[in-house]
Amino acid sequence: MSGYFDHIDPIKFEGKDSDNDFAFKYYDKDKMLMGKTMAEHLRVAVCYWHNFCWDGFDVFGGGTFNRPWHGGSNDRTSAEAKTDVAFDFFARLGNPFFTFHDVDAMAEAQTPREHVDNLAHIVDYIEGKMGETGTKLLWGTANMFSHPRFMAGASTNPNPNVAAFAALQVKHALEATHRLGGAGYVLWGGREGYDTILNTKVGQEMEQLGRFVSMVVEHKHKIGFKGDIWIEPKPHEPTKHQYDRDVGTVYGFLKAYGLENEVGVNIEPNHATLAGHNFEHEVEMANALGIFGSIDFNRGDPQNGWDTDQFPNDLRENTMALYYILKGGGFKNGGSNFDAKVRRQSRDADDLFHAHIGAMDLLARALENAVAMIENDKLGAFRDQRYAGWESGLGKKMLDGKATLEEMSDYCLDKNESPAPVSGRQEYLENVVTQAVK
Amino acid sequence: MSGYFDHIDPIKFEGKDSDNDFAFKYYDKDKMLMGKTMAEHLRVAVCYWHNFCWDGFDVFGGGTFNRPWHGGSNDRTSAEAKTDVAFDFFARLGNPFFTFHDVDAMAEAQTPREHVDNLAHIVDYIEGKMGETGTKLLWGTANMFSHPRFMAGASTNPNPNVAAFAALQVKHALEATHRLGGAGYVLWGGREGYDTILNTKVGQEMEQLGRFVSMVVEHKHKIGFKGDIWIEPKPHEPTKHQYDRDVGTVYGFLKAYGLENEVGVNIEPNHATLAGHNFEHEVEMANALGIFGSIDFNRGDPQNGWDTDQFPNDLRENTMALYYILKGGGFKNGGSNFDAKVRRQSRDADDLFHAHIGAMDLLARALENAVAMIENDKLGAFRDQRYAGWESGLGKKMLDGKATLEEMSDYCLDKNESPAPVSGRQEYLENVVTQAVK
Amino acid sequence: MSGYFDHIDPIKFEGKDSDNDFAFKYYDKDKMLMGKTMAEHLRVAVCYWHNFCWDGFDVFGGGTFNRPWHGGSNDRTSAEAKTDVAFDFFARLGNPFFTFHDVDAMAEAQTPREHVDNLAHIVDYIEGKMGETGTKLLWGTANMFSHPRFMAGASTNPNPNVAAFAALQVKHALEATHRLGGAGYVLWGGREGYDTILNTKVGQEMEQLGRFVSMVVEHKHKIGFKGDIWIEPKPHEPTKHQYDRDVGTVYGFLKAYGLENEVGVNIEPNHATLAGHNFEHEVEMANALGIFGSIDFNRGDPQNGWDTDQFPNDLRENTMALYYILKGGGFKNGGSNFDAKVRRQSRDADDLFHAHIGAMDLLARALENAVAMIENDKLGAFRDQRYAGWESGLGKKMLDGKATLEEMSDYCLDKNESPAPVSGRQEYLENVVTQAVK
Amino acid sequence: MSGYFDHIDPIKFEGKDSDNDFAFKYYDKDKMLMGKTMAEHLRVAVCYWHNFCWDGFDVFGGGTFNRPWHGGSNDRTSAEAKTDVAFDFFARLGNPFFTFHDVDAMAEAQTPREHVDNLAHIVDYIEGKMGETGTKLLWGTANMFSHPRFMAGASTNPNPNVAAFAALQVKHALEATHRLGGAGYVLWGGREGYDTILNTKVGQEMEQLGRFVSMVVEHKHKIGFKGDIWIEPKPHEPTKHQYDRDVGTVYGFLKAYGLENEVGVNIEPNHATLAGHNFEHEVEMANALGIFGSIDFNRGDPQNGWDTDQFPNDLRENTMALYYILKGGGFKNGGSNFDAKVRRQSRDADDLFHAHIGAMDLLARALENAVAMIENDKLGAFRDQRYAGWESGLGKKMLDGKATLEEMSDYCLDKNESPAPVSGRQEYLENVVTQAVK
Repeated sequence: MSGYFDHIDPIKFEGKDSDNDFAFKYYDKDKMLMGKTMAEHLRVAVCYWHNFCWDGFDVFGGGTFNRPWHGGSNDRTSAEAKTDVAFDFFARLGNPFFTFHDVDAMAEAQTPREHVDNLAHIVDYIEGKMGETGTKLLWGTANMFSHPRFMAGASTNPNPNVAAFAALQVKHALEATHRLGGAGYVLWGGREGYDTILNTKVGQEMEQLGRFVSMVVEHKHKIGFKGDIWIEPKPHEPTKHQYDRDVGTVYGFLKAYGLENEVGVNIEPNHATLAGHNFEHEVEMANALGIFGSIDFNRGDPQNGWDTDQFPNDLRENTMALYYILKGGGFKNGGSNFDAKVRRQSRDADDLFHAHIGAMDLLARALENAVAMIENDKLGAFRDQRYAGWESGLGKKMLDGKATLEEMSDYCLDKNESPAPVSGRQEYLENVVTQAVK
Repeated sequence: MSGYFDHIDPIKFEGKDSDNDFAFKYYDKDKMLMGKTMAEHLRVAVCYWHNFCWDGFDVFGGGTFNRPWHGGSNDRTSAEAKTDVAFDFFARLGNPFFTFHDVDAMAEAQTPREHVDNLAHIVDYIEGKMGETGTKLLWGTANMFSHPRFMAGASTNPNPNVAAFAALQVKHALEATHRLGGAGYVLWGGREGYDTILNTKVGQEMEQLGRFVSMVVEHKHKIGFKGDIWIEPKPHEPTKHQYDRDVGTVYGFLKAYGLENEVGVNIEPNHATLAGHNFEHEVEMANALGIFGSIDFNRGDPQNGWDTDQFPNDLRENTMALYYILKGGGFKNGGSNFDAKVRRQSRDADDLFHAHIGAMDLLARALENAVAMIENDKLGAFRDQRYAGWESGLGKKMLDGKATLEEMSDYCLDKNESPAPVSGRQEYLENVVTQAVK
Repeated sequence: MSGYFDHIDPIKFEGKDSDNDFAFKYYDKDKMLMGKTMAEHLRVAVCYWHNFCWDGFDVFGGGTFNRPWHGGSNDRTSAEAKTDVAFDFFARLGNPFFTFHDVDAMAEAQTPREHVDNLAHIVDYIEGKMGETGTKLLWGTANMFSHPRFMAGASTNPNPNVAAFAALQVKHALEATHRLGGAGYVLWGGREGYDTILNTKVGQEMEQLGRFVSMVVEHKHKIGFKGDIWIEPKPHEPTKHQYDRDVGTVYGFLKAYGLENEVGVNIEPNHATLAGHNFEHEVEMANALGIFGSIDFNRGDPQNGWDTDQFPNDLRENTMALYYILKGGGFKNGGSNFDAKVRRQSRDADDLFHAHIGAMDLLARALENAVAMIENDKLGAFRDQRYAGWESGLGKKMLDGKATLEEMSDYCLDKNESPAPVSGRQEYLENVVTQAVK
Repeated sequence: MSGYFDHIDPIKFEGKDSDNDFAFKYYDKDKMLMGKTMAEHLRVAVCYWHNFCWDGFDVFGGGTFNRPWHGGSNDRTSAEAKTDVAFDFFARLGNPFFTFHDVDAMAEAQTPREHVDNLAHIVDYIEGKMGETGTKLLWGTANMFSHPRFMAGASTNPNPNVAAFAALQVKHALEATHRLGGAGYVLWGGREGYDTILNTKVGQEMEQLGRFVSMVVEHKHKIGFKGDIWIEPKPHEPTKHQYDRDVGTVYGFLKAYGLENEVGVNIEPNHATLAGHNFEHEVEMANALGIFGSIDFNRGDPQNGWDTDQFPNDLRENTMALYYILKGGGFKNGGSNFDAKVRRQSRDADDLFHAHIGAMDLLARALENAVAMIENDKLGAFRDQRYAGWESGLGKKMLDGKATLEEMSDYCLDKNESPAPVSGRQEYLENVVTQAVK
């Protein structure tokens, strides 16, 4: 098992003319852009679950990967072995951060007590590896959707004892994240929704969720965790309907519980598209609503209606996303986690490297494109002149909350004109983007 | 033109064994159910726009209907003639309510002044027809999406003068609704969104919309309108993205502007499905969030990705919707408007009757089914026992906001058990519904 | 394990007023309709895979069902035990037919030789159970998508040795089906497509598939199997693209290899909707193209974009499907297999009964509705008069292949009229259906 | 009207560093690539309908463009004026080809006779303009979907007199195309499908369509037209279902009528995505089936479910499409028509130029990328080695149609091994593409 990646030398930056499939062509971590290094801008993280836990199964077929650390029982020895593999991968790839769910890393537990103990054991071990290697934790989370106990939800379960189990997991995962110096903590409510509305108290379940997230925030402050808490929106799958549908819905939920200044969002492009949005829309919505946090980079398939979690490869899409991320101030505690998995046929160690190298190079190119777009912001300038009328007069008065409907109506009547439509110049603006995508 | 419907006698209830295509088989307006007549429960409304304004055009072809009142200029004489036709239709069909946009009914205007005058003219005329016939206004609205001036939005336009024009229209449409005794006023933001995010200040546009709706609410109170104000959610179309996406998103918007107790939603099933929800989900979400208002009954095509606005014909779907509407207390000011249009090939006067008779009969059957489901509420009883654990103990404490994460975690640790999963009985519950659909 | 269903008495027909959740309310197997019993019309089959093999896992979580025959190694003893359970279920439910994949029923095999032997062993055993119980085989099939060897396709694999393995499986599954008196044999190409076009020779893979199906047909004739062979269309999932997309595409494939008179289709509604069609469309397409075979009844979720394989519960949809099936002459060798699974939360033995009882009752109601629609065929009569013009004159000449473009053009020029549009009466026809759905 | 484009100088190639919004940065028509000029490779065409006929209306609003040649009656004078504008645009843009429907260009006709005469008149006029300017006709077509007479289909109409009108239009449009030297003729069956299956004889309508296309092919040969005939697939919209769904379905239709060597396909990416395919899939399917013809370049919106007909801007997508087009031998009679329209807000003359310049530059970049990918064909080489096993032995025997199921089964049994899965290297291959997209 140790030795699985031995044939891969640490990945180096060789520039865009390199022919080496195992080198970065664009990801040059120390390159300065707008006053920060590329690494500081992107804060790349590799996830545990897709890379070191998943065996390649899908709904129609069994595992295809022959990872030597799979198989056998998931005890503390094998959990340590998996950790060794993961940190070996990080060291060779050179990602500064990783992310994990509690059960990704720990030995399997049968009881709450075992859960707490096994998690504590592996956190010790991970802490050691982090110290040795310098790889940092971007964020932690608890898996409250895979075990059968969560089949009807975690905090939204009809059985409050399941919510108590969820509380146990989040408490310890949050504390582990705090101890490991994580920059954030993510809540993805994979079963926080319903399979059928017929057996569901929708209003009560949303109350359960609201109260649960409030308790998490309270606990964060109690233990002094200074990182951020982010909800990850997804509209459905595995459930028919998930309460944290998209950025706009999460915002409404946070407002309802007074949490909009406490909790942000971890946006995933494949979840955005399942919800009927494109990636940059969700980023800009989060900017507009003040809840932008972190990104789970991946991509879906526009013709397939489920979460395919593929590695990103669309330069235009990611250029646009990074443009809006930078316009919003860039990542603070958040970063670029790849919530992406190699395809089921990509069964080799090499494929894990191809996938991550390609994705990191893609983000590097997208970042350079986005920086260039920001530095000569034709799009921003166009928008500024387009909305200039709102900077003064009745427009400003309305935005300031000082105008009335009657006053605006009278203004219109006095002018007695129908305002002339003005071209929105969409194709011109698209050309600006196309030219910036290099 | 008068005479267009002369060959159709007033539609009567004849019972389900009738063979008369121009009779109601289920819609028996005076039938008592749960203490109210069928008519009082459903509050059926016929809309102006699809029935009396649309000529059958679509994006790929011109008008197919040969309505005698179409063609020629839309002056005051022809506006009055259209009103005569509409009220003749209402009288023969027997719908208690109608709905309209300002520009559906009035003569075309070139200037704000003409707009105000032409609207006032037709409101007088409509008031006369209402007095003669007894048909009432369910709700009014202003069309702020068809005229080219609104191509980039109404209140969210980059040009504040367009927002002023929108203010003029809403002010006068709201006052007209008030004068005509309307039970509600609807805001559908058909262009309140963007065609491309590249030329759009998303955050500012949402501010514009928030301030605009606030002004509308203030004006409602100023003029003493006692009806409700409802936003009609739709995710997109005609725009790429519309801010009032779905019930959950509208709730977040209302919370952001402190309007959640002032404004409700007018739910349309075809808009729900375009947003990725089924009809009953949106009704139950509105119940849960306390913003249920009214319904625009219609149906979409599950295989076609645009707003087809077809007349409802799915008994199960509408039974479920009415079950949740009744569970939420039933319609108060809201009602059952048909925002539905006959197909483009259904070019005859008779088709308008087939469509409305079929839809009213469908709602009548659905209502009877829903009442039976409520009276012997197997679904409700199942849900009550399923969530019984939250009525006491730690569950109740958590819902009451008095539990902490630590306390719940400790409780779980003390019990030291993994809660056993319990069947959700989805197929049994679906059978209950199937048997109730008659 | 034996004993799992002991608390369920054999399901009886009790009529629609029965309150017994474990009785049929509509499925009255001996009821005569149009000269055949309900059982003969519907030919209901229960499938092995979803009911006796699947453990409730999904992509985001592990098995939730606690079927006593799961767990432990899948050896010949456990395969026999599973068969006992299955036939016990059939006996209690009273379904006349069952369906299975080779690997659903047999002990797990490591080599081709073991595969052949283990299959032969369980076929003997099944034959015995069939003799004891009278349950018959509707169709058999081979699972060539679950094992990792098939991750890149079976007959369309880049490695011809995998195609040889597929040949081995189909040969023996077809022969087993023949021996067990199956009425048909199904080919579902779950991995016969691609995950990425980049690594795929699309043209060659379609050739491989065409040649493979040809060999299957040749083998059928060689062994004297008199049943039918059906391809089951599906557009995608698990793959990005599957060659047997829908009925129209399968027809083109069959024509290309001269197989259109040898092979029909097994239509699944959830696959139809994933391909952008409704259920009745695919049935009527198969009728029109002369390739209708059998049905895998189930339903998808119109808001979720993957194969949910839920039990059918939509009376209108299934009424329409059965109307078109009967219009096409009804089932011959085909029948009504439920390719449907209880939801993951429906973990109990009872849930399997609720699901099947509900589905059989639904088909029974749908059948009665469809028969009534056929006997007084308002829809058919409407269509006949609508197309009457094609029965004679130039229309007939064109359909007979004897007209030319010039002749038709000249005819139009001579008449020198633009034909007047005639109402399609869609809403009237929908009302006819709605009234027939009881 | 003349003068509308006077402020735009002829568009020149200035290279990628140019800052001129009205210059080509990549489209360098005379640049040689693989032995042909860029212009010869791409064969760019501008369409009449979206650019010179559409006024910016959509389903929710009226025309927004203020084209001076719109408005007023569509008589011969205005038809000539529109032609002047169109050819002025072509001259300034420098597109070598154009495309048109009969009714796009001609004066409106009330009768068949007038149709023939008005078409003949404008064809004379167009012929003159083509002679003056050198702009050539890529393909012609007849609009048989906009006029109300076609609301229930053209050749598939229930009224054979409508099919006769369609015959008249196609005969004269085909002859006009022949006379103007068009390289192809397109059949798009916009209403050749159904709005509801309830009133439709699906089988008969497909027969009508099959016979109609056969007559068109016969007429082509009769008049000696040497160009190609192409069907343009689309799954739906405006109808619920359109018979020419996608490339695979069209192939089946052609095979059924023995037309697969006579008729090819005109692929549109937005139609491909509406049908559930990506662009390159449809190109490669057409290659594999031997029916590739021409392209209507545009793009849809992956989140909006209707035909948005936007100008292409995705470099990766179009690089892939051109890679497969070149792999299939490149365009012969076909070419790159832009079936794309500026957005409704892009109301100015300038927007037409921004759109076309951007699209031509995009295709030029995509072509250069595709040529580079072909010249160093890593993808092709990977596929060749992946399928190498089929070049000999049993694989070859099976492809040659000489193997039997039994023989393959025995071969597998003799080897008695389960073939080992081999990585499909999807991420590696995606990296190859990403690096080629420049």
